[in-house]
Amino acid sequence: MPEDAYRRAGVDILAGNVAVERYREIASSWRHPQQIDGLGGFSGLFALPGDPSRALVASTDGVGTKVLIAAALRRFDQIGADLVNHCVNDILVANATPLFFLDYLAVGKLDPDVAAALVAGVHRACREHAAALLGGETAEMPGLYRREDFDLAGTIVGIVDVSAIPDPQRVAPGDAIIGLPSIGLHTNGYTLARALIPENEWDQPFGEATYADALLAPHPSYYEAVRAIEAVADVKAMAHITGGGLLENVPRTLPPNCKAIFEQTRWSVPPIIAELVKRGELGHEERYRTLNMGIGYTLIVPLQDAGKALRAVPQAKVVGWIETRSPADPPVVVHPARAGV
Amino acid sequence: MPEDAYRRAGVDILAGNVAVERYREIASSWRHPQQIDGLGGFSGLFALPGDPSRALVASTDGVGTKVLIAAALRRFDQIGADLVNHCVNDILVANATPLFFLDYLAVGKLDPDVAAALVAGVHRACREHAAALLGGETAEMPGLYRREDFDLAGTIVGIVDVSAIPDPQRVAPGDAIIGLPSIGLHTNGYTLARALIPENEWDQPFGEATYADALLAPHPSYYEAVRAIEAVADVKAMAHITGGGLLENVPRTLPPNCKAIFEQTRWSVPPIIAELVKRGELGHEERYRTLNMGIGYTLIVPLQDAGKALRAVPQAKVVGWIETRSPADPPVVVHPARAGV
Repeated sequence: MPEDAYRRAGVDILAGNVAVERYREIASSWRHPQQIDGLGGFSGLFALPGDPSRALVASTDGVGTKVLIAAALRRFDQIGADLVNHCVNDILVANATPLFFLDYLAVGKLDPDVAAALVAGVHRACREHAAALLGGETAEMPGLYRREDFDLAGTIVGIVDVSAIPDPQRVAPGDAIIGLPSIGLHTNGYTLARALIPENEWDQPFGEATYADALLAPHPSYYEAVRAIEAVADVKAMAHITGGGLLENVPRTLPPNCKAIFEQTRWSVPPIIAELVKRGELGHEERYRTLNMGIGYTLIVPLQDAGKALRAVPQAKVVGWIETRSPADPPVVVHPARAGV
Repeated sequence: MPEDAYRRAGVDILAGNVAVERYREIASSWRHPQQIDGLGGFSGLFALPGDPSRALVASTDGVGTKVLIAAALRRFDQIGADLVNHCVNDILVANATPLFFLDYLAVGKLDPDVAAALVAGVHRACREHAAALLGGETAEMPGLYRREDFDLAGTIVGIVDVSAIPDPQRVAPGDAIIGLPSIGLHTNGYTLARALIPENEWDQPFGEATYADALLAPHPSYYEAVRAIEAVADVKAMAHITGGGLLENVPRTLPPNCKAIFEQTRWSVPPIIAELVKRGELGHEERYRTLNMGIGYTLIVPLQDAGKALRAVPQAKVVGWIETRSPADPPVVVHPARAGV
């Protein structure tokens, strides 16, 4: 892989993968007996003490350097909801229903109005999922953060009947991949975006609004859409398309004998993502490994259930299918390899 | 209160209190029906779905700017355990047993060796509490963090029988306060410490080691000590002495008619804390509101149980007692008001 734009922008996905491998070694030195193998690492699963028919499902995440854009533009109302929705989607991959959320807000200089606006967004999104905002921490750390900067992360805990956890081993050649559309970068790719679209352009017109609006477009929750599809279709596996894109997220819930074939003509790429691809001259591999490229969440269903799924959720699309994977095949292929966006 | 050293160092406890008040307003606009009133905000409690006799107990916290000292000295082995132990103590106030933990690591430049050392410390402390390290997030965010800097936060989830949650309303005049010793700053007061002890002194001798050793002394877990005391004594309320010190943490689990009287001659102040008091010329109020001053955790027990508690945990001390509080009284008094350290 050639040195890519994202790496040039300062984010080293390879170092990230090395770190994850090191974490696996550490974790394998001792595992709690009630820990259940996760579904591709989107979340962690823990058998409920005293009731092994249910599992707690937890995930911690941040919103990346989207916080720097929000801070620069002083738009604090939505990014808390971005965070919650991201976390909801992560545990939704395990079919979990959210129970509660805790936020971590770190600031250079504590402005109670800003902090309250951020937490209000967290609380609003929690309420939309009937999840408790159970706690949180606000840390004022001059010396670590510049005065106007902040970081925002959070942890969600949900619950699922163990029998309702998707079993990716059931995925089989011929299954359809349903995609739910993204509406922008969501919470990934912002270091690249800030390198390619400098701050002095953020208030410039882009489409029907500004670059700022496109860059800060909210990270949607796929909870309602997924529940609607599950009501009519046999959902075998799901993936939340975050950092790593389709190429790294979809394989995480595929069995070894299956590959996912995406047909990019079947969905549209959000204009802000197309703009980044153009400005960064991102290659095929790079764009699908760095950005969501228009798909925020995938569900794998039997082909005969696909029609029902699309009728249940009008914005859903069949975006690909499952084929038999030979040992030499990559786990994900996006056609056509040379298409523009 | 006069403008204090901590505020001069850049941490505004008053702004923090205003933010907490704003959060309370936000939270009161909608509360999940399964949310249980917390014990002084050390953790959040959530009735277990389908089994209201038990509650999940969760807390999110960070290690403050202790990370800046660890980063400057490249000592990454202990700070993950500091974080876990801090969180264990926070839910221990509700008598919860840890189930699992998730970490959030944000870096300027991802060095997998550093990340692995940090996470190994988290994992080690989880294992010491038989808690699963269930997941985590590592975010590389150039632009928000300087290259060598990092932030580390985490979330713990535990479980407790609702009948075993301490009821501070049982606290009564005449009860004894048992203190468990701190061994340094733990994870609070580091912005002040860095202002008072500049980086070029960190490798200088201090006591039998260096300032660095004293500053990075680990945040202990009080889990075993508390369980040992609970086995022999009727523990009515507990407090984890973190940011806000004795003055702000102890009142959080006192009934309105009770005040806590501490007798500072009954315990010793760690040398690094005495050094900060001296260098910063911290007043009585300020020192007890900013630093733990030698007590890391308090338990309130009937006077007749105090002896059993001390025999169960040799390092425990009776550090004060409960008296009737009149409306004009502060909830916590530390005698003598003019003592040196």
